Amino acid sequence: MKTGEDRLVRKITQALGFKGHADLALGAGDDAALLQSRPGRQLVLTCDWFLEGSHFLRDKHPPDSIGWKCLARAVSDVAAMGGEPRYFLLSLALPETHTGKWLDGFLRGLARAERHLQCQLAGGDTTRNRKILISVTAIGDVPTGGAVLRSGGEPGDLIFVSGRLGEAELGLRTLRHGRAVVRGNSNRWIKKHLYPEPRLALGRWLAEKRLATAMMDLSDGLSTDLTRLCAASGVGARIAIDKIPKAQLPNKGRSKFDATELALHGGDDYELLFTAHPRKAGQVPSAFQGLPLSCIGEVTRKPVVVLVGAEGREQKFVPRGWDPF
Amino acid sequence: MKTGEDRLVRKITQALGFKGHADLALGAGDDAALLQSRPGRQLVLTCDWFLEGSHFLRDKHPPDSIGWKCLARAVSDVAAMGGEPRYFLLSLALPETHTGKWLDGFLRGLARAERHLQCQLAGGDTTRNRKILISVTAIGDVPTGGAVLRSGGEPGDLIFVSGRLGEAELGLRTLRHGRAVVRGNSNRWIKKHLYPEPRLALGRWLAEKRLATAMMDLSDGLSTDLTRLCAASGVGARIAIDKIPKAQLPNKGRSKFDATELALHGGDDYELLFTAHPRKAGQVPSAFQGLPLSCIGEVTRKPVVVLVGAEGREQKFVPRGWDPF
Repeated sequence: MKTGEDRLVRKITQALGFKGHADLALGAGDDAALLQSRPGRQLVLTCDWFLEGSHFLRDKHPPDSIGWKCLARAVSDVAAMGGEPRYFLLSLALPETHTGKWLDGFLRGLARAERHLQCQLAGGDTTRNRKILISVTAIGDVPTGGAVLRSGGEPGDLIFVSGRLGEAELGLRTLRHGRAVVRGNSNRWIKKHLYPEPRLALGRWLAEKRLATAMMDLSDGLSTDLTRLCAASGVGARIAIDKIPKAQLPNKGRSKFDATELALHGGDDYELLFTAHPRKAGQVPSAFQGLPLSCIGEVTRKPVVVLVGAEGREQKFVPRGWDPF
Repeated sequence: MKTGEDRLVRKITQALGFKGHADLALGAGDDAALLQSRPGRQLVLTCDWFLEGSHFLRDKHPPDSIGWKCLARAVSDVAAMGGEPRYFLLSLALPETHTGKWLDGFLRGLARAERHLQCQLAGGDTTRNRKILISVTAIGDVPTGGAVLRSGGEPGDLIFVSGRLGEAELGLRTLRHGRAVVRGNSNRWIKKHLYPEPRLALGRWLAEKRLATAMMDLSDGLSTDLTRLCAASGVGARIAIDKIPKAQLPNKGRSKFDATELALHGGDDYELLFTAHPRKAGQVPSAFQGLPLSCIGEVTRKPVVVLVGAEGREQKFVPRGWDPF
């Protein structure tokens, strides 16, 4: 005789193809997961909320995108350390009405992310709640001493970002103005909002080549996250507005969206922000595996983040990205 | 310039005395925590929901007990493997109204648990939510190959529990019938409900001595959890009702509570349930560091859990403990 919770756990472990693994001695189904760490490597541990109402809307976001994104955004923090994802724990609370079709869709997206990101279910906890609540703990590893921290930026370092900033925010706004649940592949920005791609290969390459002196992922918007990286490194930054890679709006000039404002403050891009020593910055290519890399400014000694406009006008770069409080 | 979230993270890390540690290279404040595992040991990983409305009530439970209990219950899963707790990640969502006095109380209880359980903050995630949501990931370790699983029970093994069962449930009911927020030390059962004590020393001792063939912690009630242990081991059990250690009600016979029913199905005790080979069961003492250990029955080949009453009458032991679904 199984409880409702046991049945739910079985559904999840089956959908995610949970299986024993060489260094995962034991996972979902016991009190805890047992994990053997690999010699010469440190573990990378991070957890991420993904909550209905705050991070997604039940009637706007397809369930498979919620499954994909809850893992992708946690794994993005592993990418930002230059690490390799390995396992995750899933804490899932949901209404009983959502344990059928909705859960199937959610698990489909999560299983796809699990395969794509090579990050396997190792355990978790489930319970019932009126709203859908998700917390994912991602476990990765990195060669000991090889992780790239937020705190390594030095005055004179050049500042880079991957991709184009503000695209996910543009996708979110497009989706918000839409009427119903949106198909994931309807446009590039909506796709980036729904199915973000953690920059794992880039993060590992930068860490292995020791090109990045500091690194983090852009989840809350450039203005907020760059301020955090600078605070951690005890430095400031000068950023050139026209060097920031922005979303290419379809009807430039007539769009209701401002590509610059989106790029400065829009969240959820999961691109990488990193700094490089000026002597090594020449080794940073203009694109990595098709992903553009842009130099947007430099690290300064004075601990202030300054934005330089088109005519050389300077202004303080105030954090206006995502802040729940 | 700090965001509201950054200020909250600072408050949490300061209250919990977050600091670098020999094998915690980096924690709260970067994208992820970096952890060096100890040679010859496996990591034990588990996560646990602790949600307002489901697991605690904002107006009944003192904030410091919520802080204590969210960590204690996650660590109890580490105890149930015979492991040693080391670090935890805190996912906390709360209303802005609760970032002052309530949060101070919560952090006081959590800091006390952190010291008592020797389990340090390594990272986490915070966000705003109308209800208070907590998910704790506990990270421990155990000598490689030395963990006690749920699946090791064999027919003929004797079944033991620690402590007295149903006490926490009795505390919860007492608290529910009370009028206001209750002081933690008002009575023994309320205290057990508010400030449970994971059985870490017992779990490690049983694992080191290789006395326990299977083990788990009792969080959802004996009827539900014993059924889970039997399912994992592919066995059944015969339990003698009169051998189950029960809460000693103050006014026996006249109490509105039924000690047997509380012991069979009451949750939240965080005692240990374990099995021992009959040849070794004699080495299980009647008490461990003052905590009573009781033999309540034996493992059977037939995969059914049977309850034997006072006059030898048998009935099926149906899971009626905590099940959110």
